[in-house]
Amino acid sequence: MSKTPIVEVINFGDELLVGIRENSHLVYLGEQLARYGLPIQRSRVITDEAAEIQRAFLDAWTHSDIVITTGGLGPTADDMTRENIASALGAELVFDPEIEAIIQARFDLLGRTMADHHQRQCYRFVGGEVLHNARGTAPGLAYEKEGKLLIMLPGPTHELTPMFEREALPLLWRLGALSEEEAYLQIRTCGSGESTVEQMMQPIVKAYPSLTVAYCVHYGIVDVRLSSRDGAIGREALKAIGQEARELLGEDFVCFGHCSLAKVVVHELRALERTLAVAESCTGGLLCNAFTNLPGASKVFVGGVVCYSNDVKVAQVGVPESILEQHGAVSAECAIAMASGIAEHLSSDYGVSVTGFAGPDGGDEKNPVGTIHIGYHSPAGVWCKTFRYTGGRLDVKTRAVHAALDWMRRQMRAHKMEEFLSCGEND
Amino acid sequence: MSKTPIVEVINFGDELLVGIRENSHLVYLGEQLARYGLPIQRSRVITDEAAEIQRAFLDAWTHSDIVITTGGLGPTADDMTRENIASALGAELVFDPEIEAIIQARFDLLGRTMADHHQRQCYRFVGGEVLHNARGTAPGLAYEKEGKLLIMLPGPTHELTPMFEREALPLLWRLGALSEEEAYLQIRTCGSGESTVEQMMQPIVKAYPSLTVAYCVHYGIVDVRLSSRDGAIGREALKAIGQEARELLGEDFVCFGHCSLAKVVVHELRALERTLAVAESCTGGLLCNAFTNLPGASKVFVGGVVCYSNDVKVAQVGVPESILEQHGAVSAECAIAMASGIAEHLSSDYGVSVTGFAGPDGGDEKNPVGTIHIGYHSPAGVWCKTFRYTGGRLDVKTRAVHAALDWMRRQMRAHKMEEFLSCGEND
Repeated sequence: MSKTPIVEVINFGDELLVGIRENSHLVYLGEQLARYGLPIQRSRVITDEAAEIQRAFLDAWTHSDIVITTGGLGPTADDMTRENIASALGAELVFDPEIEAIIQARFDLLGRTMADHHQRQCYRFVGGEVLHNARGTAPGLAYEKEGKLLIMLPGPTHELTPMFEREALPLLWRLGALSEEEAYLQIRTCGSGESTVEQMMQPIVKAYPSLTVAYCVHYGIVDVRLSSRDGAIGREALKAIGQEARELLGEDFVCFGHCSLAKVVVHELRALERTLAVAESCTGGLLCNAFTNLPGASKVFVGGVVCYSNDVKVAQVGVPESILEQHGAVSAECAIAMASGIAEHLSSDYGVSVTGFAGPDGGDEKNPVGTIHIGYHSPAGVWCKTFRYTGGRLDVKTRAVHAALDWMRRQMRAHKMEEFLSCGEND
Repeated sequence: MSKTPIVEVINFGDELLVGIRENSHLVYLGEQLARYGLPIQRSRVITDEAAEIQRAFLDAWTHSDIVITTGGLGPTADDMTRENIASALGAELVFDPEIEAIIQARFDLLGRTMADHHQRQCYRFVGGEVLHNARGTAPGLAYEKEGKLLIMLPGPTHELTPMFEREALPLLWRLGALSEEEAYLQIRTCGSGESTVEQMMQPIVKAYPSLTVAYCVHYGIVDVRLSSRDGAIGREALKAIGQEARELLGEDFVCFGHCSLAKVVVHELRALERTLAVAESCTGGLLCNAFTNLPGASKVFVGGVVCYSNDVKVAQVGVPESILEQHGAVSAECAIAMASGIAEHLSSDYGVSVTGFAGPDGGDEKNPVGTIHIGYHSPAGVWCKTFRYTGGRLDVKTRAVHAALDWMRRQMRAHKMEEFLSCGEND
């Protein structure tokens, strides 16, 4: 295998070409491989037609060193990918009784009968390897020829992911295609826009000409990836540059790596041994969901109330009716009452609240669509912040959730020492 | 332009290959073009390197009739896409003072100075067209040669979308590449797996040999797309076949088109003039979020409680402590108490609840990880259903939400007449 093999991914599937589904396999494989210094150089999506498969595969095989395919390994008549690629490669397929035994055992376990059409999933390339499928019937296949490598993975995500990690990555390690060190350093920031982050990074960009700096923005989060394309900057040097960047980014720095904002907040809460409750109106469950996506969140997250109607705000969160009458449900005053109210009702140490107009309807002169009030109640006091966003309903909801989480993590960091000191009193 | 031109999309951008961003342009363009009977036949993602651009573009130009590119039109030195494609095409670029005037006007409006590097955005192909950019500086480009068409679109989504709709689609209409009628009919189903839906569709597949039937599965939802690749089946005939399919699919039929399950439930509730509240434990806000993603949901959705801790289940949802002690929080009994309790606490007509083990930890012999109990309280009574899923935490959450919504929609349809009849009594 050459020093930096050219990797090409081929995804089979009409549904990727007609707007039914996004190509999440490419994102997943791209992230995994980039992490080990083996970035994907090109990718293509093609239909399941025989001529197309053969032509595209041959082109890929000619111009790349490692070709990874996804999909087309199912038992139905459409799934002729194995056969078409074998034909393009000039390789032979052979029936493998071991594969049949494994598929048979799987059906036995489920108490179902193995249908005839599963027989076609029992073939592998002569001289090739079989990649075990822990979650489905279709095994993956690997085949080496003239210093090139083909890896064929199944289409369903829950089958592809474990197979890639447990079978394909070890194979790539064995062939020496992966780098021991993570190939880039990611810095997650929140609070400033992309151009501001770019400006903050300028001293580093100027100081290290061989450094590649890439930015990626998602709903208020700006990720900065530092890498050295030609390997001129080693891992330790990259880490040191990361620390310099952290200083420059100040409070906008969230973490190195891929931690979600919710995970950072949960981490702080676990360190503080405190609990949290959420009251949300316009974000409608999305903030609670950000916490409950994390395994173990129940240790600090006691629950939340989605108080869409005013009645629920009063009865379940304890917002005084007088506040709703005087200031309305979308107001700083209501956000404050919600944050303190939810902490009291659910007996948590911290309370966070979101109220606003996510659109497309609603809003008034003082609070146009996109206005979001966030309340934050902590043992140290209660505050409110107001944000204004453009974009559609789902954009506004996501940005509001990120803003709430970002504010919490800043406040918790700021108050951490103080709270640790006052722990004895509050406990 | 031939009757069914082969369309290929080329996306430029390293970030699509290293897992930073998903290829949302392909989803967007795929959906738009499929709608007008011009499905994308293949796509590729490549890096911004000159040799790679030229090779991949020439291959695409040779084998396709319409090539659409996205990205690479920016003002920076990296963005040499125009030049590289012109070279591959053997076409010439010419400076266009009209483009310069438009860009200049844009900068004047923003009160900023046009930098020198924007000059390179002022070029178009000799004999080609300029596609106006309503949201940025880089114009798109179009070029026809020997019956083939090249369309170059900018990378940022908010620039690409309006340019495609206002400039590229009209061009494709003018060239006769689009079909007047929507090209496919989508049927959304829920409740059976892909292979079962395929079997249910068999009589239709056999009866109409020129019908193309495609399936797409997402977390318990199976979409069926009916189309006629060669145009042999007209729109009205397709609709009639859709009705036949609906009969065969029975209760699994959700809707024609792309309605979410939550939208169907909200629609039923609005028809019934009833309200709904949600109590969720393991789905942690995701079910509430499915409702609150819909504009106008507040007319029927009053709110919900995310009752992660037992204390919250008791205090906010009214689950009797004795049930938690005897049966545990993950039990059919608790799901029933949550469904009726949330309806009572939040004064709604309907109550739905979810409790279970989403994983990766938790679970016991009777209720392993992946076990989900769903409670459904309606004016007609209260019931519980139990499901068991494999997969990761987020998969299980999503499947549980779909199962809850699917059950609600079935129950509401089943009870609709009865409830309409009993409206007088309950109101």
